[in-house]
Amino acid sequence: MAAHWEEFYATHLPPSDFEDNRSLLKEFCDRHNEPGRRIVLVTSGGTTIPLEHNTVRFVDNFSAGNRGAASAEYFLEHDYSVIFLYRSKSLEPFTRHFSGQKFMDMLELHNNGPNTSISVKPDSVDVLAPVLENYKTAQEGGKILYVTFTTLTDYFWLLRAACECLTIYGNRALLYLAAAVSDFYIPSNEIPTHKIQSSAGVPNIQLQLVPKMLAPLVSLWVPHAFVVSFKLETDENILIKKAREALNKYKHKLVIGNMLQTRRQRVVFVSQENSYELVLSREQMLNGLEIEDPIVDNVIASHDQFVSNTTS
Amino acid sequence: MAAHWEEFYATHLPPSDFEDNRSLLKEFCDRHNEPGRRIVLVTSGGTTIPLEHNTVRFVDNFSAGNRGAASAEYFLEHDYSVIFLYRSKSLEPFTRHFSGQKFMDMLELHNNGPNTSISVKPDSVDVLAPVLENYKTAQEGGKILYVTFTTLTDYFWLLRAACECLTIYGNRALLYLAAAVSDFYIPSNEIPTHKIQSSAGVPNIQLQLVPKMLAPLVSLWVPHAFVVSFKLETDENILIKKAREALNKYKHKLVIGNMLQTRRQRVVFVSQENSYELVLSREQMLNGLEIEDPIVDNVIASHDQFVSNTTS
Repeated sequence: MAAHWEEFYATHLPPSDFEDNRSLLKEFCDRHNEPGRRIVLVTSGGTTIPLEHNTVRFVDNFSAGNRGAASAEYFLEHDYSVIFLYRSKSLEPFTRHFSGQKFMDMLELHNNGPNTSISVKPDSVDVLAPVLENYKTAQEGGKILYVTFTTLTDYFWLLRAACECLTIYGNRALLYLAAAVSDFYIPSNEIPTHKIQSSAGVPNIQLQLVPKMLAPLVSLWVPHAFVVSFKLETDENILIKKAREALNKYKHKLVIGNMLQTRRQRVVFVSQENSYELVLSREQMLNGLEIEDPIVDNVIASHDQFVSNTTS
Repeated sequence: MAAHWEEFYATHLPPSDFEDNRSLLKEFCDRHNEPGRRIVLVTSGGTTIPLEHNTVRFVDNFSAGNRGAASAEYFLEHDYSVIFLYRSKSLEPFTRHFSGQKFMDMLELHNNGPNTSISVKPDSVDVLAPVLENYKTAQEGGKILYVTFTTLTDYFWLLRAACECLTIYGNRALLYLAAAVSDFYIPSNEIPTHKIQSSAGVPNIQLQLVPKMLAPLVSLWVPHAFVVSFKLETDENILIKKAREALNKYKHKLVIGNMLQTRRQRVVFVSQENSYELVLSREQMLNGLEIEDPIVDNVIASHDQFVSNTTS
């Protein structure tokens, strides 16, 4: 009997631009694969579950995606090559610092006919310059690959394709699975084609459990990589227990647990060996330190240790 | 017995920032209320239906919101005052032309220590300058008020509050209801507090029909205004029939119908008197004409006619 995850791929078609993205992933992984070089796959944002094939409505667990986007910046600072696999419209590294109107308000128009120019206001240069510099460095060095998804199906196809390209890195590959993947979905053969009509009465949405892709990912797709998953809960009492359960079940290296309400100040690292908290002080927060900075530091330290332990 | 819509307000609390937004709406409407001055409420984007009170998951009909955002720009060009009531993260007038990375790529960093400056690359100035100029004109003249919502409940509270402020305009108020409002929801007293656990099995989401706010809006809240609603379908065969049914039921002035697949090339205007199509030619599309430009022209022509007919 096919496992639940195999059945998913057998019954859900890849997105239309899948082959293009697979080529980009392969080219990126091959190009960066130098001795000793580290690479990270950062997943970010939520997944949507269409309720109709011509999608008007869907079940969503949209996440702004700040954790993934911020973490990607810190991995670049530590000289990892970064595959940023993110939900379309969720935050991106660098641009996340400047939303649309904020950007427009930074600009000054110097109207001068054919010599019209636009500059950034002097008082905004201090904030924008370092971000812009890091952005340009990453772009020009080709250090980051952006790949987007929207639905749960898109995400699963791209996740597996990325893993296949990462195998050549062995233990130098880090998977940092910060995307908020839906637990439930509606199988594609049960989705109606057209918009559900309200005159037909109220629809009863029957969801099914999503296969846990972490199982084949850890055991089959990237068996030598360092895999980190995230666990988000709203109930403090079950957080660590659930994190440890996940670790025992999937046998990966690290679960980072966080509460929805306090996720910017506090996370808990749970590994086979131990668990510890990482908490920002009030002063650190006032100074603008982002918790993703020490999170990435700690993850990289664990990855270093792992690489030492597993390199013969 | 209370009508369905009255019961909704009685059982769903307003969002926490509701009073702030109501003050902003009132101040904006009062400030612009000069003789002959026209005002438009543009609603835009989809609504979310939380599945949990600490929202991790929700049913959504997210819409990028290009129609509303583009239309708001054209209403400003025609000297309407604009209330832009839009779904958080959906597109905004002006900034919609430049997504995050596109913006970063337009910028040039001139590193020069304390005299570091940032300018827009000359070849991007042509595109950015006219948009920036219109943005600044609208901002400096205080011609547009931005108000955001996320959930269906937020939207309904803000819609009614906006209508209450618009009544002083009588027939000079135009309501351009382009937001994609969900047809279904889960009443607030049936939503669980914490994240639904997948171990508890698969949830069966029982939705209810959303009350049609267009009914009290047209008959009670802004009885003298010119009200335009939108109808989105994926099945061509039922589009005009459904548009006319809506018009007969709610007695407003105009329904603009569009198909999901062709909404950027073709819409159909359905009024009590007639119905006609508005189609962009291939050439117009290649020249970058947006269909919202002639849509707004046509809506304003109908509003002019309506004002003439109803002013004694």
